[in-house]
Amino acid sequence: MTDATDLASEISKRVRDLLGAPDGLVPLHEPEFLGDEELFVLDCIRSGWVSSVGKYVDRFEAEIAQACGTAHGVAVVNGTAALEVALRVVGVMPGDEVLMPSLTFIATANATHHLGAVPHFVDAEARTLGLDPVALRAHLDQIADRRDGVTVNAQTGRRLAAVVPMHVFGHPVDMDTLAEVARDFHIALVEDAAESLGSTLSDRPCGSLGRVAALSFNGNKILTTGGGGAVVTDDPDLAKRAKHLTTTAKVPHKWAFFHDEIGYNYRMPNLNAALGVAQLAQLGTRLAQKRALAQRYIDCFAGMDGVEVYAERSGTTSNYWLNTLLLSPDRAAARDTVLDALNGAGLMARPVWEPLHTLAIYADCPRADLPVTADLAARIVNVPSSAKLGGNAR
Amino acid sequence: MTDATDLASEISKRVRDLLGAPDGLVPLHEPEFLGDEELFVLDCIRSGWVSSVGKYVDRFEAEIAQACGTAHGVAVVNGTAALEVALRVVGVMPGDEVLMPSLTFIATANATHHLGAVPHFVDAEARTLGLDPVALRAHLDQIADRRDGVTVNAQTGRRLAAVVPMHVFGHPVDMDTLAEVARDFHIALVEDAAESLGSTLSDRPCGSLGRVAALSFNGNKILTTGGGGAVVTDDPDLAKRAKHLTTTAKVPHKWAFFHDEIGYNYRMPNLNAALGVAQLAQLGTRLAQKRALAQRYIDCFAGMDGVEVYAERSGTTSNYWLNTLLLSPDRAAARDTVLDALNGAGLMARPVWEPLHTLAIYADCPRADLPVTADLAARIVNVPSSAKLGGNAR
Repeated sequence: MTDATDLASEISKRVRDLLGAPDGLVPLHEPEFLGDEELFVLDCIRSGWVSSVGKYVDRFEAEIAQACGTAHGVAVVNGTAALEVALRVVGVMPGDEVLMPSLTFIATANATHHLGAVPHFVDAEARTLGLDPVALRAHLDQIADRRDGVTVNAQTGRRLAAVVPMHVFGHPVDMDTLAEVARDFHIALVEDAAESLGSTLSDRPCGSLGRVAALSFNGNKILTTGGGGAVVTDDPDLAKRAKHLTTTAKVPHKWAFFHDEIGYNYRMPNLNAALGVAQLAQLGTRLAQKRALAQRYIDCFAGMDGVEVYAERSGTTSNYWLNTLLLSPDRAAARDTVLDALNGAGLMARPVWEPLHTLAIYADCPRADLPVTADLAARIVNVPSSAKLGGNAR
Repeated sequence: MTDATDLASEISKRVRDLLGAPDGLVPLHEPEFLGDEELFVLDCIRSGWVSSVGKYVDRFEAEIAQACGTAHGVAVVNGTAALEVALRVVGVMPGDEVLMPSLTFIATANATHHLGAVPHFVDAEARTLGLDPVALRAHLDQIADRRDGVTVNAQTGRRLAAVVPMHVFGHPVDMDTLAEVARDFHIALVEDAAESLGSTLSDRPCGSLGRVAALSFNGNKILTTGGGGAVVTDDPDLAKRAKHLTTTAKVPHKWAFFHDEIGYNYRMPNLNAALGVAQLAQLGTRLAQKRALAQRYIDCFAGMDGVEVYAERSGTTSNYWLNTLLLSPDRAAARDTVLDALNGAGLMARPVWEPLHTLAIYADCPRADLPVTADLAARIVNVPSSAKLGGNAR
């Protein structure tokens, strides 16, 4: 292979061969409904319980907490809402700063902004694709100042209230080292587990690795509720406050409408929770299929020059939400040619998100140096990752 | 009747007789699914299109706009989100004030707060239960100041950016006079039509009476999508911006993630829109049933001392979302006794919302004198209002 076109056509050929030359467009990630989805959704309609309360909401909250190894779960309307509420319950206030990767979906920054707080971007590491604890510590050593029991960004004077690592494409970040940094600097650790349901770090599930975590069940995730999210935590007080805030902060009363905080209407409807309960029962199967597919991608590209498949690192299991080709640094310029070749062949592929600090809307936010972010963003290509492409693996 | 207990037991007896002594608790407002709900929801699941895009979202947006007599509709996750987006697209900015009734659901104030703006409460009128245009004009005459082409609250220095009347329990407010006041003071008019789908003012549907309107399809509304809302407007630019903002403000691109505004994840899932499309087909029937039920309440309490049923005023048709007993001013002290009697008899009843200015969370907001609000709040009792209680009226 001597140029971008050759690399692109070779990658496209291998992916097409691997997926068995399917008819029509192969989506990036399709949902599947192979369990009790129809039964449970019809039960909602026939019982009349489709809206904000109902037995499926209760079941989904209990079962998503169990899946994440946490004591409590609160079902909400989507992952962005889950992030906003998770940040608020750990104490993020208007005017605070929230440390986060620049290499994440826009929801992390938007949720922060909607709270009146300011995103503060820190670099990723190639080892995990997620927030780099070494870079975070070095950055905080430079800018963090402890004043009257509060950790402050000395450059802006704003409180550094929380840090939100995100497990990119399902691959667990180095949460243990990040937790040490967060502890040393007295900053709340909120886990953005939107993409990582079913992943583990040292046998502990993603979702249980911070004080509180946010999940997403959008249609493109490993499980879906149509649209939905959840806040999970071991802390009963945080869970109680999250439930209260997401249900308009209405105080229980036989009939009166007292609200004791400015809350949100972020409830997940029972109709969507019904889908979620049915989907959760299939998580094990789905994870096995996705592992099998990832292994096929890894095998398929083994030994090929110019590209590697990102594989879970030692001590973790990934849910392999999206399979990831990583072009060699010297082939980064070929990325768009590769994307064109794959999409042109009906194999849906996409780059990682535009790093948030490069968007005009967040360009003025504080940030650390972000060399790894820029490097990874130039080299990542996601390829079709639906569980069913993994066959009937167990 | 000489005391509260007598009044309460007489009211309870009449409601029970009217509803035919049903078994078990009679809810305040139950949804009904008598059309293609099951078919459409199963179609979503079987096609795999349950999430943020899909044909039911497109259909629901077109059909809700048609039902409201507007050119455009944007489906969102709930009524609170619809209000927030409606306010934002007419230009409400952080630090602005938004004029609204104190006698409304908390969503109107919360949506304003989440935009970084400040609620400013104005009085209701007994004639409509909603915002009083005469009181609004008198208040603005006192506090509004025109500075450099901007209408400002002279007492706070903040811009008066919008006024949001709400059609309480489905009864249209005096939008024509409110529109004159809004025009005279150069303040955007946003219609909170959360409760008034199907109501009309001079034959024009609620939802079409301001620059932009917000609707709700919560489980307790005349039609439901589980949870959901919509923004409707005749203005193509407002509609386009509302759609853009509610879908993370992502710029169309073959694969890249560029977002050109700080948007929201407020999409209505296709699964919920499927329910909505089926429900909308039943709107006419539902409205006829609810009118029949309202007439029965009106007849049932005709001539009774101490209480009247609030009826649509001339020139309007109400969807009679919630039937409303209005105790005489001299019987206001009996309200809680009446509520206890009705609820004790299994007839779900509730007062109107606590006026928002009386809640600690909004007590510091600017406000006009609110004597009618306080008076109405003390005298309103809502009684069971499900469409099916109206029988098979056409």
